[in-house]
Amino acid sequence: MHTSNTLSRKETWRLLALVGAGLAILNATFQGDGAPLVASIALCGIVFAVAFSLIRWLGPAFIKAGLKGKDMAKPSRPEIPETMGAVCAVVYLMSLIMFIPFAFYKDIVAATSGGGNRDVVIESQHIENGRFLHRFPHGKLASYLSGLLSLQSVVILGIGDDLFDIRWRHKVLIPAFSAIPMLIVYFVDFGVTQVVVPVPLQPYLGDIVDLGWLYYMYMAAVSIFCPNAINMLAGINGIEVAQSLVIAIQLLFNDAMYLAPMTPYPHPATDSHLLSIYFLLPFIGVSTALLFHNWCSWAIRTAISLEWCLPWLASLGISAKLLPLGCWTLLSRSGRAPPSPLIDTSLRLLHTLRLVRITQDENGRITESSNLTLLNLWLVWMGPMREDQLAWHMVAVQTVCGMIGLFVRHRLALLVFHHDNREFGFIA
Amino acid sequence: MHTSNTLSRKETWRLLALVGAGLAILNATFQGDGAPLVASIALCGIVFAVAFSLIRWLGPAFIKAGLKGKDMAKPSRPEIPETMGAVCAVVYLMSLIMFIPFAFYKDIVAATSGGGNRDVVIESQHIENGRFLHRFPHGKLASYLSGLLSLQSVVILGIGDDLFDIRWRHKVLIPAFSAIPMLIVYFVDFGVTQVVVPVPLQPYLGDIVDLGWLYYMYMAAVSIFCPNAINMLAGINGIEVAQSLVIAIQLLFNDAMYLAPMTPYPHPATDSHLLSIYFLLPFIGVSTALLFHNWCSWAIRTAISLEWCLPWLASLGISAKLLPLGCWTLLSRSGRAPPSPLIDTSLRLLHTLRLVRITQDENGRITESSNLTLLNLWLVWMGPMREDQLAWHMVAVQTVCGMIGLFVRHRLALLVFHHDNREFGFIA
Repeated sequence: MHTSNTLSRKETWRLLALVGAGLAILNATFQGDGAPLVASIALCGIVFAVAFSLIRWLGPAFIKAGLKGKDMAKPSRPEIPETMGAVCAVVYLMSLIMFIPFAFYKDIVAATSGGGNRDVVIESQHIENGRFLHRFPHGKLASYLSGLLSLQSVVILGIGDDLFDIRWRHKVLIPAFSAIPMLIVYFVDFGVTQVVVPVPLQPYLGDIVDLGWLYYMYMAAVSIFCPNAINMLAGINGIEVAQSLVIAIQLLFNDAMYLAPMTPYPHPATDSHLLSIYFLLPFIGVSTALLFHNWCSWAIRTAISLEWCLPWLASLGISAKLLPLGCWTLLSRSGRAPPSPLIDTSLRLLHTLRLVRITQDENGRITESSNLTLLNLWLVWMGPMREDQLAWHMVAVQTVCGMIGLFVRHRLALLVFHHDNREFGFIA
Repeated sequence: MHTSNTLSRKETWRLLALVGAGLAILNATFQGDGAPLVASIALCGIVFAVAFSLIRWLGPAFIKAGLKGKDMAKPSRPEIPETMGAVCAVVYLMSLIMFIPFAFYKDIVAATSGGGNRDVVIESQHIENGRFLHRFPHGKLASYLSGLLSLQSVVILGIGDDLFDIRWRHKVLIPAFSAIPMLIVYFVDFGVTQVVVPVPLQPYLGDIVDLGWLYYMYMAAVSIFCPNAINMLAGINGIEVAQSLVIAIQLLFNDAMYLAPMTPYPHPATDSHLLSIYFLLPFIGVSTALLFHNWCSWAIRTAISLEWCLPWLASLGISAKLLPLGCWTLLSRSGRAPPSPLIDTSLRLLHTLRLVRITQDENGRITESSNLTLLNLWLVWMGPMREDQLAWHMVAVQTVCGMIGLFVRHRLALLVFHHDNREFGFIA
């Protein structure tokens, strides 16, 4: 819709109002015990405004630097800037860094022995040792920083991918690399590799099984699976961002269930879910800004840099059960050469099951088949539709699947485990 | 020298031997109390080999992706890949992340109550709370992670600069942004803003002055000054890397003075200088690999992404007194229009002081002047010389200046302070 690279007067005033309100709220939370949750919501608004403006302003600079592509879903194939997701990712990372003092405000005050005592003259030995460090929750800070570090790694590698057209078989491994900071911090910091055994299996395996190195392999595998699942779904404008946004909101919903009115405080899982919320809210802010520009319209193509962040957000607070949808891509055929007998038989079988649509020539040979992606599957089932309709359908599918996932997580899981951690205090 | 993009057989075997030896040493340190310093030296060798190979292999991919420039110092102006520093920076960051378990091995063992107890069955409550976390030095981990975070920020922003040709007046501020993680972690974690007053001023100001916010402003200013000082020196191949390497080695020397035989252990500054060494050694590894390719020869232009890391390394362990050299660039003249009276007078004055060289036409008007950079100043003083000679001269100048800096830091400082922190326990 928008092809201009400036903000209209109306947009300018609205965004300025948003930023102003956000800053006022942030300033107000910087007293007493602090109010990190309120500060995080305010930050969400600010990053939306900043990302929205930057996406609009930086388009020409990106095209000039050669970061552009053609919108293949439009008949005129207009030139559009690419890797705008990188801009959003940088805004997102900066906001998370800026948020650190708000997240730890209460602890800073406590560490200075009760607020306002900072200017008390201290002796030179204290300058060397710092303040009363034993009171400061360094463990929480280390978790926050390691999350940030994994996000930054995925952004750096994602930018590299955008620039160099890395091959698919290498690209799938990028998230595994960026998992390393988090896995390593998990290793040195917690190192808990035991998992609770489902009730029906407990007679054979005991209550708890130590997976050891397998636990890290599992986490690495999840970290490879999730972002690629989202990445493979890509194909129409806005779908990756929209889907990420839906997932982020559902994760936020799940985290919110662990907060005060729903779950009595103090609860051992509250802090880690709060941390997850601090990471999710600004993500929702920048993703919404990107979606505004990306939704089947002006179509700034998103970089993997942003949406690959999402699984990290997920792994911060909750396990990855909710996440992936689109891992349907098994193979894509260009359809020029006649398929080998094995593929021919498979395609006919899938056609019978209504999972692909094939076109045959007069001799009954397969000349064309739809790609084995979720998008194509949906088109096979639902018939042809416009790009924006398809995107809406996908968002609906994602929403329903996510809700089923949440239900399974908190209700059906009770069939095989003794308790849901929301009630009895296991960290998800 | 090398224009091929493959390793020769001799190079391959040497690098493989280096990596093999490094891995063997790393593996050997992973027992007992661990030996992080030995592990770090081994890592230095491994990252050298990895960076060396990657620089060689990735050249064509960079040129293909448009990341190339012309070597302006050669008559034929050959095409050379640019932003290879980014590759080194990523290798460097990955190596620092990989190093975390080695740096904290002793503490991991201590946290699991004495080694080998990990497989003892623990109760389900422990799974939730993790191991005996109170024993783990989260403060140290947080320092390490915040250093990494600042480095990653500078790399992301540096890559952005390489891609977008950001204007000079914006570029100078990039390091200030990447200072934010470190400043914020310093703020929430230590928050010590008092400085010791030099002895002659103590009657007026007291022993200690609290700079408050000025302290953070000072740190931000230093963080802007140092990397730009190095960046402005750029102009001939290899000089930035070579200079960074000289500074890194001198910082390493300074850190080494705080270790066991020179400074009795336990000493409050030992740990922070060890941390500094862990960051410096792999930096030296990748920088050497880059220098091999960059030294007035095949000339991969370095990105700011790598050398901008250096001041962060410096700020980890020691104050920035040693660092900057090249901040001589005040203005550069293209020399086409006749200079304004003020600049004309200034140039003539500087010419008299032998700080620039001007060329005049028959009417005595200035038609040309040498740029006000350190490189040009040196050429004015020493006369014309070859590119590699000039680079060697600069390395020598840097070495001498750095040694003077170290002497001032540890000897002359005793004239205005009571003690050197190496002997009496102030953290530099």
